[in-house]
Amino acid sequence: MSATHHYPVLRLRPKEDRRLRAGHLWIYSNEIDVTKTPLHGMIPGSVCRIEDAQGKAIGLAHINPHTLLCGRLLSRDPHLLIDEAFYQERLHQALRMREKFFSAPFYRLVHGEGDGLPGLIIDRYEDTLVMQPGSLGMDRDIALVANALQALLHPTGILLKAGGAARRLEGLEDRVEVLFGQVPERLQIWENDCLFEMDPRGGQKTGWFYDHRANRRRLLSYAPGRRVLDCFAYLGAFSIPLAKAGALEVTAVDSSAPALALLEENARRNAVAPIRIMHDDAMEALARLRDRGEQFDLIVLDPPALIKSKKDFKEGSIAYRRFNDLAMRLLAPGGILFTASCSHHLNRETLLGQIAFGAQRGDYAIIGEGTQDMDHPIHPAVPESSYLKGFYIHRRELIADEPE
Amino acid sequence: MSATHHYPVLRLRPKEDRRLRAGHLWIYSNEIDVTKTPLHGMIPGSVCRIEDAQGKAIGLAHINPHTLLCGRLLSRDPHLLIDEAFYQERLHQALRMREKFFSAPFYRLVHGEGDGLPGLIIDRYEDTLVMQPGSLGMDRDIALVANALQALLHPTGILLKAGGAARRLEGLEDRVEVLFGQVPERLQIWENDCLFEMDPRGGQKTGWFYDHRANRRRLLSYAPGRRVLDCFAYLGAFSIPLAKAGALEVTAVDSSAPALALLEENARRNAVAPIRIMHDDAMEALARLRDRGEQFDLIVLDPPALIKSKKDFKEGSIAYRRFNDLAMRLLAPGGILFTASCSHHLNRETLLGQIAFGAQRGDYAIIGEGTQDMDHPIHPAVPESSYLKGFYIHRRELIADEPE
Repeated sequence: MSATHHYPVLRLRPKEDRRLRAGHLWIYSNEIDVTKTPLHGMIPGSVCRIEDAQGKAIGLAHINPHTLLCGRLLSRDPHLLIDEAFYQERLHQALRMREKFFSAPFYRLVHGEGDGLPGLIIDRYEDTLVMQPGSLGMDRDIALVANALQALLHPTGILLKAGGAARRLEGLEDRVEVLFGQVPERLQIWENDCLFEMDPRGGQKTGWFYDHRANRRRLLSYAPGRRVLDCFAYLGAFSIPLAKAGALEVTAVDSSAPALALLEENARRNAVAPIRIMHDDAMEALARLRDRGEQFDLIVLDPPALIKSKKDFKEGSIAYRRFNDLAMRLLAPGGILFTASCSHHLNRETLLGQIAFGAQRGDYAIIGEGTQDMDHPIHPAVPESSYLKGFYIHRRELIADEPE
Repeated sequence: MSATHHYPVLRLRPKEDRRLRAGHLWIYSNEIDVTKTPLHGMIPGSVCRIEDAQGKAIGLAHINPHTLLCGRLLSRDPHLLIDEAFYQERLHQALRMREKFFSAPFYRLVHGEGDGLPGLIIDRYEDTLVMQPGSLGMDRDIALVANALQALLHPTGILLKAGGAARRLEGLEDRVEVLFGQVPERLQIWENDCLFEMDPRGGQKTGWFYDHRANRRRLLSYAPGRRVLDCFAYLGAFSIPLAKAGALEVTAVDSSAPALALLEENARRNAVAPIRIMHDDAMEALARLRDRGEQFDLIVLDPPALIKSKKDFKEGSIAYRRFNDLAMRLLAPGGILFTASCSHHLNRETLLGQIAFGAQRGDYAIIGEGTQDMDHPIHPAVPESSYLKGFYIHRRELIADEPE
């Protein structure tokens, strides 16, 4: 063993180094040569040195011996120490990139694999950071990360807000915990020239979804004079800038009463005309609007992940199909539907197929595509780090003097 | 036979209507029930009524009995007449959409299947239209289309400029022909606040590529103070706006001397600092720059289709891999590479795989994606109408105070 810092070794079975050498960062438990290096002897959440079958070092990884996805590569340098300085360097690189592209401190600071920090999400809300560790290794190292963040950014507060299916797979419970300083009940976000407030403890994920920032901005020029329908409106990140940009009227649908209460507050905060609120299940609301014969010129359909794991694929795909079919029925000629999916199990082609179903009935064309914004970088060799796709769908106008 | 206009009937074999009913527009010769309706009896380029195996009408299609892709659906209404009025309505819809989204008359007016006009491309250069019929049916109907364009748009000239592999498959020869009015030697384009001139007869395709308009615009904010490398620069559609936006220096590579001569003219026309010209094969130029140790902060890699048909897939994929690998080697830390592919046989995931190869060596992340602009609409059920994809790749900065 030549590891400078004497991390325990995990050896891969023959040829199982290929995906890692091609750039991927994940190791599966059936790729480990457990006769030579028993995976179950490793400390859950610790760092191991990964070697190929010939004993050549591949790098250092966080290990969880109890999961199928048992390793996540942190570095290809086997001589590194995974300490506060390591985290500080990666965080510094992530920060540099955001500071280059964003003029205000409201962004995803760390997007896991895309920032070389597998299993870690950090969203920045000005002076407050909200961390979402999704792997056992990152959960274990969270104090190192918090210290590195303090040294780098001098935040007024760091909140740990972690939950969801990915953590349960890792054997981790939900946690909501102030790690440092003060974190107020409400945090503010500036986005697309509007000011929002959200609840970092009670809201979804870290409280806000920065990933659609550019898609929201792109819709603004289509807003003036339009009837807007915002399904899954949450806190109004689409609705309110569209109202401010001159929409004729905005209808916001959501099933969460606390979210809608915040949306209405956010609308007042930005002095936009009142938004018509539908507190309802989105599918039911869309069906009701269709039955009433309502039509909209601009529709936003941004559901939460309807396919959370591979076993949900069939049912989730049908849900995307039904939602898009309903939304297209509500779209007036000349109108635009922005439809998105954040399910990484549903790729672009499959979403396109679900859209094509509803598009059979009329003259629809896709005039644009939108993906996760640049503070959510994709690791080129980790397709799983790419999850958000959206299509801008235009319904052709009726031509008055059409033949016959 | 109930066809109002008595178009000849082509009957599909059992179940071969499914793809069409799901929205697609293409019919293959092996899907026709040739015992009931002999395909070879049909007039090449004529319109036929398409029926399913039970005799139920599906719609009207342009027919080429001598090709595998033997039919392209023009309408799902079997009672329509495919005449000048038909074309005028479709053209009118296409025009309405462009007039809604573009403030100046420089755009692709018709993008084939995406505009309900399979086999037809029309680019608009202010008062001049350049048409590119790609199917035998559209080639035969070109006078109808030209008449409809005159009624709708009153152009000063219409040029037919058609060539390439797709036409040869249809048994069509290359054609360059003024169909109406006057078409000058040079046409002007306004794009991204720059004025360009191009040669519609001698240039590539219709003379210009509008599809990257938005991708070019997006790069402008990264230009100030940067060293730019534009591979496959053609007439300077990327280079010149980047120079105007404040790039420190711009290097343009192209293998075509006439294109580079026009690029230099275009540079002078927009009063930008001289552009460094490399008249060379792109692969050789990139290798030479690498050998010299040159580095760039902003690289544009937009090759022509390297995979023109399925049989080119392997060789073309390797070429994409090599180009991207070379470009990443030339990218300075903190820099951005915009890499694109217009080969519709190479999908997004496969291009990503080719990029991942070069990305193994360093810290690269994808911070954005770009597709064909909105004047190139995608038909939701015809994946073949989606062809352009691009990635914005960022190379992480080196952190001076990095550990050890």
